[in-house]
Amino acid sequence: MRPQDLIMLKRDGKAMPEDAVREFIAGVSHGSIPDYQTAALLMAIFLRGMDDTELSAWADAMLNSGRVLDLSAVPGVKVDKHSTGGVGDKVSLCLAPLVAAAGVPVPMISGRGLGHTGGTLDKLESIPGFSTDQTVEAFTRTVAHAGLALIGQTDDLAPADRKLYALRDVTSTVESIPLIASSIMSKKLAEGIDALVLDVKVGSGAFMKTLDQARELAETLQGIGARAGKEVTAFLSDMNQPLGRAVGNANEMQEAIDILRGGGPADLWEITLELGAEMLLLGKVATDQEDARERMSRARASGEGLDRLRRCVELQGGDPRVVDDPAVLPSPRLERAVVATRGGALGAVNGEQVGVAGMIMGAGRKQLTDVIDHAVGITVEARLGDDLQAGDTLAVMHYNDEAKAHTAEPVLLAAFELQDEPVTPPPMVYEVLR
Amino acid sequence: MRPQDLIMLKRDGKAMPEDAVREFIAGVSHGSIPDYQTAALLMAIFLRGMDDTELSAWADAMLNSGRVLDLSAVPGVKVDKHSTGGVGDKVSLCLAPLVAAAGVPVPMISGRGLGHTGGTLDKLESIPGFSTDQTVEAFTRTVAHAGLALIGQTDDLAPADRKLYALRDVTSTVESIPLIASSIMSKKLAEGIDALVLDVKVGSGAFMKTLDQARELAETLQGIGARAGKEVTAFLSDMNQPLGRAVGNANEMQEAIDILRGGGPADLWEITLELGAEMLLLGKVATDQEDARERMSRARASGEGLDRLRRCVELQGGDPRVVDDPAVLPSPRLERAVVATRGGALGAVNGEQVGVAGMIMGAGRKQLTDVIDHAVGITVEARLGDDLQAGDTLAVMHYNDEAKAHTAEPVLLAAFELQDEPVTPPPMVYEVLR
Repeated sequence: MRPQDLIMLKRDGKAMPEDAVREFIAGVSHGSIPDYQTAALLMAIFLRGMDDTELSAWADAMLNSGRVLDLSAVPGVKVDKHSTGGVGDKVSLCLAPLVAAAGVPVPMISGRGLGHTGGTLDKLESIPGFSTDQTVEAFTRTVAHAGLALIGQTDDLAPADRKLYALRDVTSTVESIPLIASSIMSKKLAEGIDALVLDVKVGSGAFMKTLDQARELAETLQGIGARAGKEVTAFLSDMNQPLGRAVGNANEMQEAIDILRGGGPADLWEITLELGAEMLLLGKVATDQEDARERMSRARASGEGLDRLRRCVELQGGDPRVVDDPAVLPSPRLERAVVATRGGALGAVNGEQVGVAGMIMGAGRKQLTDVIDHAVGITVEARLGDDLQAGDTLAVMHYNDEAKAHTAEPVLLAAFELQDEPVTPPPMVYEVLR
Repeated sequence: MRPQDLIMLKRDGKAMPEDAVREFIAGVSHGSIPDYQTAALLMAIFLRGMDDTELSAWADAMLNSGRVLDLSAVPGVKVDKHSTGGVGDKVSLCLAPLVAAAGVPVPMISGRGLGHTGGTLDKLESIPGFSTDQTVEAFTRTVAHAGLALIGQTDDLAPADRKLYALRDVTSTVESIPLIASSIMSKKLAEGIDALVLDVKVGSGAFMKTLDQARELAETLQGIGARAGKEVTAFLSDMNQPLGRAVGNANEMQEAIDILRGGGPADLWEITLELGAEMLLLGKVATDQEDARERMSRARASGEGLDRLRRCVELQGGDPRVVDDPAVLPSPRLERAVVATRGGALGAVNGEQVGVAGMIMGAGRKQLTDVIDHAVGITVEARLGDDLQAGDTLAVMHYNDEAKAHTAEPVLLAAFELQDEPVTPPPMVYEVLR
């Protein structure tokens, strides 16, 4: 089928034949289909959607546009976790070591931060020497020896997704549930996993603002997984305020280490425990949820999780002392508190604005080519529902550049909304879709 | 506004600001906006439409992407006619000389045939020596001296339209009323006309299959014209069978000359008379419709129309004897009749299939680079409603290549549908929108 004929079908709301979808994605990968035809099809998909059959063909073709890892040499059921992204979401950093410690191998390929959202790779790179740029062979070796590996996407995994993503970014076709879902799943299925836990974030700081949208995305992701023969559990979890206290890079890495050492914020531990327990169930090492939670807690209390992170850091070229000594991570020279200008209950924290404030301070990127200052960041002190007095600390800025902090401060302050009426804080997890 | 932000507005069904539309079209013309962004916007417009303000800004920006002719040196109200295209539509060839003879200058820029539809330029080029490729200066001179000129689009008129059209063709965004309307009007308004008569074809052989679609297109075209300060009258006319008898190039040219000489098929004269009378009214040389029709008939009876065509042909390098001597035009070596295989009333003639049969014989192009044999063509003998016996002639093929005729014959035969019930032939003109 000619590309324009496939475009016409989707334009008219008709189903695209599976083989034509595969041919199109192959053409995108090989460069034989010009970008303008791809752009027209992406817009037609954005506005018309895709049914289950089209979507699975699309995701599977993207998956097969590149290499699909074979981790069969690593014993056990391989399980990964994917979060749709939020502010302060450092869950992967403490979750993967604990799950690995409990006996489930975690082959994790993560992304970089852009705009107000942070990236797992950037947080890891605050560890001196740590390399997220690993060959497939090194990745497999690290999974086998540490039980986990944390790397960035390699050029040969789902290359069609990279091309499509670049094009979606400049043609305003990013926010499409089938396109988002196929992009996520093609990359995740290329990791060679057996099962997947999804953390779909809902709220002001997330891409999905409502529970209905989040549920639709979760079900779409699960559908692709199911048709590819993989078990996928989806959590719908709250992102109406940053997760944990730290927003940045080195400070988020440290907060994840704090969790592994038995400390850290309660909300971060709660979501880590829930997601991790589910991974143990999917990984067939726990008999039920209670058993799974106990195994997670034991992996934390025994220090085995911390040890897994130490091994992983060492195998990936980083300084392993980081797990014991906070001074290994870079720290900023200056700090300043942002305080409440009135009293009241904390009714809303705009996560996007907190993220943008961090970005202005140098913790994030406006463009992919920007260089990050791993040391700077924000500690969010106030939580939804807190009863505050004027002058109470809302957040602390940790920074190196006075001018940038000056620009970021009002953005950060405006993220916090105080109100007279009492506020009930949202639950951490709204729903679990199995 | 960044191109992706404009795309997002249209994608979400919001109105595009006028200045952003102008900036976008200017970017398309200058090549600063990549084709993939244009393709995404075209698909969004295809699926979301454009309101009147957007549409006028879009058409006006396309018009102003190139040169706008100034025919103020030619006295009189300049009026052109545009047909949305059909099979056997050679109206321009007899209409323009008659209208010119009646005192209204006709600066006409036409197109080439593609697929099943013929093109006025191709029909003209069956005249030995005739050149449709004229400079703007020569065009203006011919309009001044003959009262009409018949040329092809020049590179400097509405160049944005050429770029957009090429892209629409390969991204399945052709059949969009706002995109069709702005394409037509940007080219027509660039001719330096004061008023325009539109012949919007409706029926099986036209792009618009229903009266409702045709009315929508007509009103959209009129709206763009009105907002540009031009009077536009739109005819909705029948294209459920080829117009006249001849389908091809030299034979259509000859049929138009026959009209100018007082002969030719009744349906062709009827539509020529109606459209021409309207042009005389818009051109302010007739007092009312009756007067206008009389002036058209006089221009025909006096031979003044024929003389105008002679002058135009001569000024554009063609052999002027063509208007008196049919032997000047190329004629094919062979002919063959296609006959009815059963008796009955002629209920349908699929104009698209007649056009395709002509194309197969060499009278049309499958691709823009194909070379036409101007001599070959079809004479359609049977008309809707005719009561036929088995063996009666439906059409005659005039051809040079036996193999091509062999392929075309069943296609042509299948275009004619005979039925037992009596058939009422459709009217020539359904509606006139002023």
